Amino acid sequence: MAEKSGAKVSRRRLSPDDRRAELLTLGAKVFGERPYDDVRIDEIAELAGVSRALMYHYFPDKRAFFAEVVRAEGERLFDATSTPALPGQTLFDRLRAGVLAYVEYHEQYPHGSWAAYLGPGRSDPLLVGIDDADNARQMQRILDEMRTLVPGDLDPSVERDLRVTVYGWLAFTLEMCRQRIVDPSLDAHRIADACAHALLDAVARVPRLPSQLTAALGVR
Amino acid sequence: MAEKSGAKVSRRRLSPDDRRAELLTLGAKVFGERPYDDVRIDEIAELAGVSRALMYHYFPDKRAFFAEVVRAEGERLFDATSTPALPGQTLFDRLRAGVLAYVEYHEQYPHGSWAAYLGPGRSDPLLVGIDDADNARQMQRILDEMRTLVPGDLDPSVERDLRVTVYGWLAFTLEMCRQRIVDPSLDAHRIADACAHALLDAVARVPRLPSQLTAALGVR
Repeated sequence: MAEKSGAKVSRRRLSPDDRRAELLTLGAKVFGERPYDDVRIDEIAELAGVSRALMYHYFPDKRAFFAEVVRAEGERLFDATSTPALPGQTLFDRLRAGVLAYVEYHEQYPHGSWAAYLGPGRSDPLLVGIDDADNARQMQRILDEMRTLVPGDLDPSVERDLRVTVYGWLAFTLEMCRQRIVDPSLDAHRIADACAHALLDAVARVPRLPSQLTAALGVR
Repeated sequence: MAEKSGAKVSRRRLSPDDRRAELLTLGAKVFGERPYDDVRIDEIAELAGVSRALMYHYFPDKRAFFAEVVRAEGERLFDATSTPALPGQTLFDRLRAGVLAYVEYHEQYPHGSWAAYLGPGRSDPLLVGIDDADNARQMQRILDEMRTLVPGDLDPSVERDLRVTVYGWLAFTLEMCRQRIVDPSLDAHRIADACAHALLDAVARVPRLPSQLTAALGVR
């Protein structure tokens, strides 16, 4: 008993940011285990050992809480796939490392990875917005990496085709990783190879690609 | 007034199957225009000129109605992408024709195509099941087409890799088509080329591919 109330006291000492993060981590676990409709926001408060009032102080309702959980998981996933650039790495190596980090993230945080597959789905404008923003910055990161290989600006139609191709590829990669959850016999390195090749192969098909980018794709 | 009630009488003469199909088509339009939560099942009945009781006779509740709308749209999409096999067509030609039919379907039925992007989303087990079934038979159709090129059975690990690759590719293609809804300046033929190339390029990366399949991929 003393220990339990001691734990509660130490919980109460958390800073608002840490408390909020703790509630979101707990939310990721609970929403990852059960359907959205079955989860009550009160039980999250109980699990965290905080009052309902405090829970509602941080999050106005379940939908807002869920949206923040998804956003926080998206943030964590983005950070996890921010692999450091190593000297001598080709674009293929970079992509491969990113996908591998993604697959490993799914292994490490099985409770959080569901968020990437977007809980209550695209019909909720609040969540569509989060998904779009996460997708857009993943796309931007990859596009920026390609841009560094080409001096000057890209032709607008080439840039548009690259953008669309990267969006398509992100969906491909998400699905490949989802398939691995369905069938764990799939090798993570094989998935990473397949995904890295898929992007470079698809980019190689973009019409009027600058020669510097074509050359970088050749190093596969 | 006479005309309106006349229209109602003719509606009442529909066979149960046609009436059901009419309600589903109407549902596709309404759910395509507004978020799920904003749609009342009563207004569908009103729009169709049928009683609430009749509506509930066909569909027990809004969720079941929505699930049926998604299922019917999935069916329509599957049929629309069942392009006839023409003599002399390569695998690339077949894929390209299928993707083009898919893009054209989205143009023709803008109100229905949202269903492919899965309304209330993956957190609803009923809808996840429909999505999975639609995906599985699209995958199977493509895998079967590849199988006809190879005498005898495929090696199980090759078959698994092909299956996973096709699933990834379906997600890629769905996203490419979604990008075209965002940016209509994207050319449908360019999308079809990119998608058809993407699958064959990805399949070519599958280890231990039978030589007959490699040869078929070469014809691009």
